[in-house]
Amino acid sequence: MTVPFTFALKATDGRARTGVIQTQRGEIRTPAFMPVGTQATVKAMFIEDVAAAGADIILGNTYHLMLRPGAERIAKLGGLHSFMHWDKPILTDSGGYQVMSLAKLRKITEEGVTFNSHLDGAPVFLTPERAVEVQCLLGADIQMALDECTPFPCSREEARVSLDLSMRWAERSKAAFETMSAPGQALFGIVQGSVFPDMREDSAKTLVGIGFPGYAVGGLAVGEGQEAMFDTLDATTPYLPEDKPRYLMGVGTPLDILGAVARGIDMFDCVMPTRSGRHGQAFTWGGRLNLRNAQYAEDLTPLDADSACPAAQYSRAYLHHLVKAGEMLGAMLVSYANIQFYQELMAGARAAIANGTFAAFADDIRRRYARADGTD
Amino acid sequence: MTVPFTFALKATDGRARTGVIQTQRGEIRTPAFMPVGTQATVKAMFIEDVAAAGADIILGNTYHLMLRPGAERIAKLGGLHSFMHWDKPILTDSGGYQVMSLAKLRKITEEGVTFNSHLDGAPVFLTPERAVEVQCLLGADIQMALDECTPFPCSREEARVSLDLSMRWAERSKAAFETMSAPGQALFGIVQGSVFPDMREDSAKTLVGIGFPGYAVGGLAVGEGQEAMFDTLDATTPYLPEDKPRYLMGVGTPLDILGAVARGIDMFDCVMPTRSGRHGQAFTWGGRLNLRNAQYAEDLTPLDADSACPAAQYSRAYLHHLVKAGEMLGAMLVSYANIQFYQELMAGARAAIANGTFAAFADDIRRRYARADGTD
Ligand SMILES: [Zn+2]
Ligand SMILES: [Zn+2]
Repeated sequence: MTVPFTFALKATDGRARTGVIQTQRGEIRTPAFMPVGTQATVKAMFIEDVAAAGADIILGNTYHLMLRPGAERIAKLGGLHSFMHWDKPILTDSGGYQVMSLAKLRKITEEGVTFNSHLDGAPVFLTPERAVEVQCLLGADIQMALDECTPFPCSREEARVSLDLSMRWAERSKAAFETMSAPGQALFGIVQGSVFPDMREDSAKTLVGIGFPGYAVGGLAVGEGQEAMFDTLDATTPYLPEDKPRYLMGVGTPLDILGAVARGIDMFDCVMPTRSGRHGQAFTWGGRLNLRNAQYAEDLTPLDADSACPAAQYSRAYLHHLVKAGEMLGAMLVSYANIQFYQELMAGARAAIANGTFAAFADDIRRRYARADGTD
Repeated sequence: MTVPFTFALKATDGRARTGVIQTQRGEIRTPAFMPVGTQATVKAMFIEDVAAAGADIILGNTYHLMLRPGAERIAKLGGLHSFMHWDKPILTDSGGYQVMSLAKLRKITEEGVTFNSHLDGAPVFLTPERAVEVQCLLGADIQMALDECTPFPCSREEARVSLDLSMRWAERSKAAFETMSAPGQALFGIVQGSVFPDMREDSAKTLVGIGFPGYAVGGLAVGEGQEAMFDTLDATTPYLPEDKPRYLMGVGTPLDILGAVARGIDMFDCVMPTRSGRHGQAFTWGGRLNLRNAQYAEDLTPLDADSACPAAQYSRAYLHHLVKAGEMLGAMLVSYANIQFYQELMAGARAAIANGTFAAFADDIRRRYARADGTD
């Protein structure tokens, strides 16, 4: 029997929430950070270590996977979970964001978006229905409705046109999902509306009217800045149901995340821990470190003595050497340590919310991240 | 109390030998394959997995480490073992081979070799004494005497001049080692003489006259081809003492290694498993595979069902995808699988020698490697 998709709120602290999403592939403890597995791999990490770091769920990118190796091929090979040896939940985005940022010769119509693959120029037609079909072929536990990620900045007029299209697509996505999905899977709607509070409210209400088991907030972390992002969340989360999970897409730094948790967000994803890891930027309980800096050349201190991550037990001197020498092991170790730091941060946030001490927890992290080595 | 460096022969099968080198940091089961840790890392591998794959010893490159991060710096940081979290034996080369292949503006005199770093052009002077000093600073358990790696091809005249210089350097290396080394460490001499049997014999006898706890065969695998290499080994190993380990430097393919084991060699190192791993070339019990080949795109067979390596349990389709997508995980998994295959190959060779079935074992591997996918 398939376990149905449910969300149970366990505790709140101000507007911050902690709870559990139940899926057919296990529990997701919220607030949750989802490591990004763009091309069926969390970059530079063994998948066992992603689990060991504490991740309950990872994200896959529909755009990348549909182009290579292809959604039909992954389905034929048994689905994304077995392909990459990850048996916990996977959330996939709809592909809309990467179509806007990576593909060439995009053309958007009411029906969908036509674009050319960034890999080989091949023409692709993505519709709300095809985006759901691809995510079902991948076997994603949590799927996203195709939307147009509104560019930033944009006029009210442009934001309105884009938002209205995304809302019509959300309705089509739900209809397609109802015919194509497997038991236990869930489709989230995505709130758009740029930085305009009235449009965010309108978008949230429209999606709630359609009805989804979870709601994402899209179109943020696109250059608007942290203050505008927080203001937009303030104008959005009050209109989302208390009993459904809320996912802020593509965010962010530790302080972005904590600010969003304070505003009632439950789920996050970001390439930052792995991308930074490949460039020698470490996230630790003591703040952010740029391991390329000469100050670490003879520093025998472990990367992060307060982390339980095996990778964080190597000396800063060794990691500095690996990063300077361009060795893959540097990317492997710092990515692992960063992913684990993000997971430990979320675990800390969950415990603090449960204890009613979230504000103090977030203040402590803010102080630690103000003391970083100045290379942020 | 320091465990002294010793070698005990356990069994022979024809000229093939199996035994154990005892060091202060543990046993080395021979024939042994030493993964190459050029810059204080076995490329794309966690050091725990190098041990899990079955390696008893790794190799470090004196040339690379003396330039970056520097031998004095590694000593200050506690030595190479603690720097890279590897507590089993380390063998270091003398730096001579890389000086010839990587450095700029080399000038060889009786005293030593002057060269410019390939990293920043800084002038460096390497003598037999300095090479030993550097290896002692690194804390290497097995060290190599500085030699001139004779270029190939070369005339008898050139080979003679080069060999004589290397033999004088071997004597100076031993004298330096006796004043600088720590208890339990060992220095090996290196036989040179290009492909000239009389010079190889002469070199071996000269080194045995000086007296070393182990002997390396250098100047091979430099383009002379497998037959000339085997012929040269036939002209060398009979002049090396039975009760000391013999190390063939920089070799090689599985069939190179088995041919050399058949000629009485005990130790090997080569970048092939890790370098091939980074390029999607896999060594398996079924032969060599080029994972870039389209034939693997939908092949759900594990990379190597006969290997105990966790990395070899991923499907060829998944590895093909990772390699084609340029994902680091492809390099990580195939490097791990290759290193473990090499270790399993050596374990198989050791068991076969102990059972007196080495010839059949080597024949079987030759058949498997003749059946490869044609991309060797
Ligand atoms: Zn991000
Ligand atoms: Zn080699």
